[in-house]
Amino acid sequence: MAGNTFGQLFRISTFGESHGIAIGVILDGCPAQLPIDLDFIQSELDKRKPGQSKITTQRKESDTVQILSGVFEGKSTGTPIAMLIPNEDQRSKDYSHNTDVYRPSHADYTYDAKYGIRDHRGGGRSSARETAARVAAGAIAKLLLKHHGIEIFAHVSSVGTIKAPNLQSNDVAELLAVREENIVRCADPATAHQMIEFIDGIRKDGDTVGGKVSCIIKNCPVGLGEPVFDKLHADLGKAMLSINAVHGFEYGSGFEGSEMRGSEHNDVFLATNGEGEPKTLTNFSGGIQGGIANGMEINFTVAFKPVATIMHNQQTINAAGEAAEIKGKGRHDPCVVPRAVVIVEAMAALVLADHLLRNKVSRVF
Amino acid sequence: MAGNTFGQLFRISTFGESHGIAIGVILDGCPAQLPIDLDFIQSELDKRKPGQSKITTQRKESDTVQILSGVFEGKSTGTPIAMLIPNEDQRSKDYSHNTDVYRPSHADYTYDAKYGIRDHRGGGRSSARETAARVAAGAIAKLLLKHHGIEIFAHVSSVGTIKAPNLQSNDVAELLAVREENIVRCADPATAHQMIEFIDGIRKDGDTVGGKVSCIIKNCPVGLGEPVFDKLHADLGKAMLSINAVHGFEYGSGFEGSEMRGSEHNDVFLATNGEGEPKTLTNFSGGIQGGIANGMEINFTVAFKPVATIMHNQQTINAAGEAAEIKGKGRHDPCVVPRAVVIVEAMAALVLADHLLRNKVSRVF
Amino acid sequence: MAGNTFGQLFRISTFGESHGIAIGVILDGCPAQLPIDLDFIQSELDKRKPGQSKITTQRKESDTVQILSGVFEGKSTGTPIAMLIPNEDQRSKDYSHNTDVYRPSHADYTYDAKYGIRDHRGGGRSSARETAARVAAGAIAKLLLKHHGIEIFAHVSSVGTIKAPNLQSNDVAELLAVREENIVRCADPATAHQMIEFIDGIRKDGDTVGGKVSCIIKNCPVGLGEPVFDKLHADLGKAMLSINAVHGFEYGSGFEGSEMRGSEHNDVFLATNGEGEPKTLTNFSGGIQGGIANGMEINFTVAFKPVATIMHNQQTINAAGEAAEIKGKGRHDPCVVPRAVVIVEAMAALVLADHLLRNKVSRVF
Amino acid sequence: MAGNTFGQLFRISTFGESHGIAIGVILDGCPAQLPIDLDFIQSELDKRKPGQSKITTQRKESDTVQILSGVFEGKSTGTPIAMLIPNEDQRSKDYSHNTDVYRPSHADYTYDAKYGIRDHRGGGRSSARETAARVAAGAIAKLLLKHHGIEIFAHVSSVGTIKAPNLQSNDVAELLAVREENIVRCADPATAHQMIEFIDGIRKDGDTVGGKVSCIIKNCPVGLGEPVFDKLHADLGKAMLSINAVHGFEYGSGFEGSEMRGSEHNDVFLATNGEGEPKTLTNFSGGIQGGIANGMEINFTVAFKPVATIMHNQQTINAAGEAAEIKGKGRHDPCVVPRAVVIVEAMAALVLADHLLRNKVSRVF
Repeated sequence: MAGNTFGQLFRISTFGESHGIAIGVILDGCPAQLPIDLDFIQSELDKRKPGQSKITTQRKESDTVQILSGVFEGKSTGTPIAMLIPNEDQRSKDYSHNTDVYRPSHADYTYDAKYGIRDHRGGGRSSARETAARVAAGAIAKLLLKHHGIEIFAHVSSVGTIKAPNLQSNDVAELLAVREENIVRCADPATAHQMIEFIDGIRKDGDTVGGKVSCIIKNCPVGLGEPVFDKLHADLGKAMLSINAVHGFEYGSGFEGSEMRGSEHNDVFLATNGEGEPKTLTNFSGGIQGGIANGMEINFTVAFKPVATIMHNQQTINAAGEAAEIKGKGRHDPCVVPRAVVIVEAMAALVLADHLLRNKVSRVF
Repeated sequence: MAGNTFGQLFRISTFGESHGIAIGVILDGCPAQLPIDLDFIQSELDKRKPGQSKITTQRKESDTVQILSGVFEGKSTGTPIAMLIPNEDQRSKDYSHNTDVYRPSHADYTYDAKYGIRDHRGGGRSSARETAARVAAGAIAKLLLKHHGIEIFAHVSSVGTIKAPNLQSNDVAELLAVREENIVRCADPATAHQMIEFIDGIRKDGDTVGGKVSCIIKNCPVGLGEPVFDKLHADLGKAMLSINAVHGFEYGSGFEGSEMRGSEHNDVFLATNGEGEPKTLTNFSGGIQGGIANGMEINFTVAFKPVATIMHNQQTINAAGEAAEIKGKGRHDPCVVPRAVVIVEAMAALVLADHLLRNKVSRVF
Repeated sequence: MAGNTFGQLFRISTFGESHGIAIGVILDGCPAQLPIDLDFIQSELDKRKPGQSKITTQRKESDTVQILSGVFEGKSTGTPIAMLIPNEDQRSKDYSHNTDVYRPSHADYTYDAKYGIRDHRGGGRSSARETAARVAAGAIAKLLLKHHGIEIFAHVSSVGTIKAPNLQSNDVAELLAVREENIVRCADPATAHQMIEFIDGIRKDGDTVGGKVSCIIKNCPVGLGEPVFDKLHADLGKAMLSINAVHGFEYGSGFEGSEMRGSEHNDVFLATNGEGEPKTLTNFSGGIQGGIANGMEINFTVAFKPVATIMHNQQTINAAGEAAEIKGKGRHDPCVVPRAVVIVEAMAALVLADHLLRNKVSRVF
Repeated sequence: MAGNTFGQLFRISTFGESHGIAIGVILDGCPAQLPIDLDFIQSELDKRKPGQSKITTQRKESDTVQILSGVFEGKSTGTPIAMLIPNEDQRSKDYSHNTDVYRPSHADYTYDAKYGIRDHRGGGRSSARETAARVAAGAIAKLLLKHHGIEIFAHVSSVGTIKAPNLQSNDVAELLAVREENIVRCADPATAHQMIEFIDGIRKDGDTVGGKVSCIIKNCPVGLGEPVFDKLHADLGKAMLSINAVHGFEYGSGFEGSEMRGSEHNDVFLATNGEGEPKTLTNFSGGIQGGIANGMEINFTVAFKPVATIMHNQQTINAAGEAAEIKGKGRHDPCVVPRAVVIVEAMAALVLADHLLRNKVSRVF
């Protein structure tokens, strides 16, 4: 109820502050007998961790995950899986100058106003560090989805005004390989090169820039999604909007769809004549109709605002409402999207895993 | 769990199919002693009902609401408020030709695939008729918000490629008056005229077109929103995405924000020197920081795809997967946004009412 | 959250006051394609309705149920099933003398204290009339359980100090037939006769008396129940304790078990040698071990206090805290257990149906 | 949903197996600014830990708790409070002989049947060791309740057939002092002496015995409890029934109340004439009417079956259903109630804290 739990049947509860002892997550509802591959979980965390490249923050965290419960002899037991990620690089002193000052476009003021108390060290709970716990749990969700043949792939589709072309492949393994070859995590190598140059310039300016992450889900079983409120895209949208810095979500035809006519937007069904499941000629529906997956590729895009921490001095106020200046120093990400790709995938995986379970009780037979 | 409940503390459960006996809603968690103005609830429903003008469907429904419980001598009692809206214009025969055919970009196929059974009369549960129940409950949410001084205003900000300019007033009552003077519900009269002409042309073509609804929330108390998952904008986003035909949501700087730099996007705080609550110079944050309302105006935009029901014959398939043709006949909305304005407001009100209550338990003192 | 919803996956939300327009229930999560037998639902309600015999209240209510949604051509569609039971005998004037007076051991005072407003007509929401909605939903739960071969049987096992012997049959149909042959709903005819005589005397005294209802569940699948908090008996216990007038719950060895030694209480497993599921020699566990059904018969007992409405004049206070007298008049049940039998069964069925669905997602394979 | 979460607004999620790395809990929803006294939390755990006396198991666990998050400079921050209790005495080998054998009246068989996999070391998740996490969270609940003046006190009211007299004091501090002076935790020293002798004899027999814990709650605010399903006693009942080995729950007049007449059972209100809140002459209602606290002392009793682990050899079966013998060895509690007292208090505190928060949103004014 206090907002730190996500999912209904495949449900996570996260905890932890940026500069506390540890962050972590309890995953409750993972079905029993799922093989749990700790190396895979760690590899997912490695894609989110800071210090990966010149275009990510230089904060050092190994983000080593430990499983405390719920796994026995390599398999889930049906009991809660608790995972712990100790905080290592707790340079709290870096943040001592912020104790009494509200950083612009951060959550300093709103946390103080809401709770009357604030762990000011590195943003505390409002830090994107919290998303590491989501990635750990999302990795287990991916293992469950993989078991059902479902694949999720996200990449950086824009940085500032630099946009990647549409995906050139339907092969997720191939896309993944291409994406991981560049530090910005764009599936188009040429665009990736431009993006990296651009972000590096932004970094040298001490500034930041926004971007977009696009995601596809392949082999989603027909039927996932629970109308009328828990439509599949509504739950995906909430999941994405709950990620730090996200300001927008669209699926299928998205915002452009609002400019289209019905006669062009309608996805015409192709006759199957009994061979396999129905497909549609176009996919403006983004793989979801009436809130329920229709078996076509699910696709959506997530817009991230520029990171608020910049290396410029900024005017602001302190807790007393008096004018104050905040110094531009410390470590920061010039652009969050390269590290956000795996967070988007993790949240998508959590939504899918949840709806996979929920759909198991939709029929008597 | 099956998706027909929305909200945590101020919680609605809706029921009903398009052509069944009635639709309705139970609102559980409305605090006691709230004056319940039935006329206001009905007036909200009247803004959503079909048959209002030449640019809405000609289906006739008075959408008369009846309160069955939870209100005594004009006030809420703290017990569940059940509201019933009988279906009047149940011309089921209009839909008999659709019994075995999947209409393109409707939910016919996905409902059948998910449940193995489908009430095919007018879309059954997947019909936007269900949103009448949301509007009724949302009206009570508005009464609660009004009690706390919170105002919500939405209008049609685009139809197809016709876009309205930014709002010219901060006075919600004035905006509302302007909006209700035109049948498309746009707060800019000149744009409204263009939109109406355009939609009427679309209607004559037997086609449909998408559009956008923009919404502002004024006087939202600082502190509403529950990080990390139930961020205020995440819950707003889910609420909007759960409305039929919505394909996108953005708040604050939205998708454009992804192209900006941090140095221009950051909302600088203005010194209060002890006078009132902090304000920011700009509002790219859209009134929400770290998922918590910061006291500035909340604003967001919702993209609607074009209505799938068109008056053209279309190729499709039947339940056996065989090619079939669907005839363009019956009654339909050429553009859904004029009627969607009040649905957007209702869902926003439900989210705000819920978070208003949730925030009451955030502190010991 | 406000307490009017029960169940997780098979979930009901009830509404309505004793003397309002109607009471009712939304059942969300009933799996699609379940045949819905309206006659059976009505027959269950008939067992709870007032005015059945000389030992129940003479209030007249036909308790005729109407299904508003969620059922199409005789089967559940997977969408919410709303059911309505209009209130007919709304003699509000009978209760006008109670407007300002708190009846002893009723909920008049606590509702007023909690909500600051109270529908005083016949107890409003606190009336046991609300349980009719549970019985209607419970009937559908029974249909789902029947589909899985699960049987539930309850009867009056004591009235005052008159106790029935242990059940003499394992045949639920037979037990049911015997039970329904007497108006007190005890499966032992001789004891039933004593109970009826006793209650009739109590009634003539204008007094009331408590009693107990015992319930068995046969053919419960092994595995139902979700440790550690949602143990099957914990959910059964909550379900029973939520029924008006219930003051105690025990299962298996119950309170007597607290006097036993482990060496006598342990239920020894019998070797199956591969033939069928394990059984135990004794069943002090009441069919549940570690919160999970073990396949043996589930049994529990529920204690009801005497009804608070008596035909004697009683000293009490009014809302101002001043001494007042309450007159003994109106219609009342001298003993609630004969009508409570079907409520106990309904709540048990709702718990079982919920856990049946919940258990479907406990394993990957 | 999978059963490891308890509470709605003041909500805990526990994790961990008996012989895993650690057990722990996330408490979400603790209001901000509550002083968190770690020493008090530890002192509560010390009352539950094994190895306290000759009548408890000799397993050695310091049960040292660590707070990982949610507390800053000694106060709650409104973010999740995670607590970790490492397992120290992990003598898994003690349990290796049980790998393939189902111990009678344990959860070995049902966990295996439900999940198809089982952590057999010391009962895994089904071990009462899990309750340590509840005690830690319950201690924080007690701190919140103390802040509101609410006191909870439980003690051992019976062991086997040895029953303690009614409490001789209304002073919780005094009762607590008396209780803690004896190792069985009975508030009556003379009875305590008898109980200890009896349990010691049982222990020497290698046997176990059941008992009862009774609990009172003082200064509970009028209004707590959420009808109709989340009645205060229904939530207390579920809380107690979720504790390992509990087979029964009663409040107020309890099972005896089923034998009483209304004319004797009704709690007559005493006139206040404007001085303070209404009181009743008797308290058969146990401080709760219509599911809502009425300001009188809340009281209830919990029945525990005898511990299943005995030092006798027992006949049983293995996973193949073949006859097997289980050896009586290892460490065990001859009677669970002395250590259960603080668990009962913790669960009661969690229920009260939850309802305290829930009641904050029951009225507009």
